[in-house]
Amino acid sequence: MQEFKATEHQHVRYNPLKDEWVLVSPHRCLRPWSGQTEAAPDDQPPDPLNPLLPGATRSSGQRNPVYTSTYVFPNDFPALLERVPDPPPSDHPLFRSSAAKGTCRVMCFHPDSTMTIPLMTVDEILAVVNEWVNQLKELGRKYTWVQIFENKGAIMGCSNPHPHCQIWASSYLPNEPRVKERCQKEYFIKFKRPMLLDYLKEEMIKKERVVIQNAEWVALVPYWAVWPYETMLLPINGKPQRMTDLTDDQKRSLAEIMKQLNIKYDNLFKCSFPYSMGFHGAPTGPSAAPGDSPHWLLHAIYLPPLLRSATVKKFMVGYEMLAQSQRDLTPEQAAQKLRECDDVHYKAKK
Amino acid sequence: MQEFKATEHQHVRYNPLKDEWVLVSPHRCLRPWSGQTEAAPDDQPPDPLNPLLPGATRSSGQRNPVYTSTYVFPNDFPALLERVPDPPPSDHPLFRSSAAKGTCRVMCFHPDSTMTIPLMTVDEILAVVNEWVNQLKELGRKYTWVQIFENKGAIMGCSNPHPHCQIWASSYLPNEPRVKERCQKEYFIKFKRPMLLDYLKEEMIKKERVVIQNAEWVALVPYWAVWPYETMLLPINGKPQRMTDLTDDQKRSLAEIMKQLNIKYDNLFKCSFPYSMGFHGAPTGPSAAPGDSPHWLLHAIYLPPLLRSATVKKFMVGYEMLAQSQRDLTPEQAAQKLRECDDVHYKAKK
Ligand SMILES: O=P(O)(O)O[C@H]1O[C@H](CO)[C@@H](O)[C@H](O)[C@H]1O
Ligand SMILES: O=P(O)(O)O[C@H]1O[C@H](CO)[C@@H](O)[C@H](O)[C@H]1O
Repeated sequence: MQEFKATEHQHVRYNPLKDEWVLVSPHRCLRPWSGQTEAAPDDQPPDPLNPLLPGATRSSGQRNPVYTSTYVFPNDFPALLERVPDPPPSDHPLFRSSAAKGTCRVMCFHPDSTMTIPLMTVDEILAVVNEWVNQLKELGRKYTWVQIFENKGAIMGCSNPHPHCQIWASSYLPNEPRVKERCQKEYFIKFKRPMLLDYLKEEMIKKERVVIQNAEWVALVPYWAVWPYETMLLPINGKPQRMTDLTDDQKRSLAEIMKQLNIKYDNLFKCSFPYSMGFHGAPTGPSAAPGDSPHWLLHAIYLPPLLRSATVKKFMVGYEMLAQSQRDLTPEQAAQKLRECDDVHYKAKK
Repeated sequence: MQEFKATEHQHVRYNPLKDEWVLVSPHRCLRPWSGQTEAAPDDQPPDPLNPLLPGATRSSGQRNPVYTSTYVFPNDFPALLERVPDPPPSDHPLFRSSAAKGTCRVMCFHPDSTMTIPLMTVDEILAVVNEWVNQLKELGRKYTWVQIFENKGAIMGCSNPHPHCQIWASSYLPNEPRVKERCQKEYFIKFKRPMLLDYLKEEMIKKERVVIQNAEWVALVPYWAVWPYETMLLPINGKPQRMTDLTDDQKRSLAEIMKQLNIKYDNLFKCSFPYSMGFHGAPTGPSAAPGDSPHWLLHAIYLPPLLRSATVKKFMVGYEMLAQSQRDLTPEQAAQKLRECDDVHYKAKK
């Protein structure tokens, strides 16, 4: 039989952070697509009644200040509230419910609705990073988990194109970080080193999945990536466990690499690239303290849905929902395509 | 403080089959929706060049027979192939890949492209069930896992409205059944009874999540459902571990309840209700034998994306991707809405 080539032959890859496998079927890139297409991301027109604008009145009746940088306010339709009665104790192991307290905030990145991270200046993005750190500091005192996330693009259920993210803080440790906590801890006990630091070291040697790198951060397509152009941002120096551990250099470099990565993303299919992104670091809460989670390394994750073009996404359905994630192009191919994208935004070029 | 009401107050619920939690935020049903809407499911017009039609020539150059009931053929763009070279052994615990062999088939349910399960006769659906059993028998001899699944609707990435499902058989046990295998085994060791049998017994007493029931099957919204109108089909009598264990009565009753459930689904938003559905039973393969997995109970799962109407779906993005699934209406509310749907298909009523 032929020699194995990862770019041609199906195989499964292991994700040690989540204890899961992904099916990689690169030969499937040849499949034609005649299914549903999405509206091109740039078609979302700015809304003059946009409730996120400086000075706008929101559905709660509250009026935004005429903000000029970032602006944080409570989500008017929060999934998590601070004061709700607790459910009664469960009376059966198969019918278990539990209390969930929390709070949800919205954070505008910029007063201008037509702005996005790749079009903002590094200083403007740095203001976003600094505010994330403030939010994590404040909410992390009380809550076990503070999830900062950005849903970008109508295809991601984002109902407002104004540049913003959300922050949901909860009394419980949600599934995804709970699994990452367990897997990183097991690795640390076994190997006496943080999993993601070992991983980073290898990736910096191998280079084939690295997209870009600056003084403090690297953006790479993880070996076990599920979404076609999924990436991870990892800090190169030190071992920050949470956003609150970042140095000033790391914060500015983070703003820089976010801009650079997003320029490449936008250039890939010549559109404002949709995704969900967010940060994962050590859990927080009243008993958390700096340095208490040596098995953790802070990282950001970008999960973009597009597969072939601005209008054709990867459907995570059927086999993926019932059995296992499946990807077409390999992570190495995705990294190469992103590396080859221009460093200047296509809108800035005319 | 007020008394806890599940229909008003947020809480988390535990899924013992997957060792995961879901955030239930029923107060969020009040949130207005101004985001992306989908094309109404019924807008997908039949294609005269449809490669799934009896007598059509497919992209592989192969010609379908003029079939009159079900018809199974190899997927022309399979994610899993039988003969591929194995990847080399992994040289690092964080870069693990493994061989994956398999086969992918497509199964047409009916020669008529405008047909769907709720519009087919019970005898026609029974032919589908019988063919599923045949497929599981044949492929299960060789493969560890045989995933039967139907992606229905363009919103689910289904590129062809012709009634059909897919069957992907693999040499490996995929993530979802691997977790269910582990959780059911742990429960069985602890309680000496199959988890889903205990669960079923309780649900038949509580009744509040039951949608419909016939002589052999019950359709219910699981206590831990993630998708708004997610349901599960469970066998009431005996303890079938795999589809191949089903009696003739169970097969016919399955066809009946599939029709009835899908009529309710279609009536809910007056559209051909999109979903991914599939079956989970004990793993198969050369060493599997009838009765060898007493911790398993065969079940079907329906995962429909719609939330509010034929055009507004639930977006599983942002918080869901990075932290934990979140649902708005409670499983009990969903079950009630489905129960209240008419038992006669809206298209049959004029
Ligand atoms: O095989 P199809 O129907 O072309 O493809 C569809 O179902 C597959 C299996 O669930 C998914 O991997 C694809 O993303 C989806 O588009
Ligand atoms: O809060 P939004 O932006 O209205 O809602 C969006 O993000 C939430 C958090 O990821 C999801 O639960 C919703 O399904 C999605 O539509």
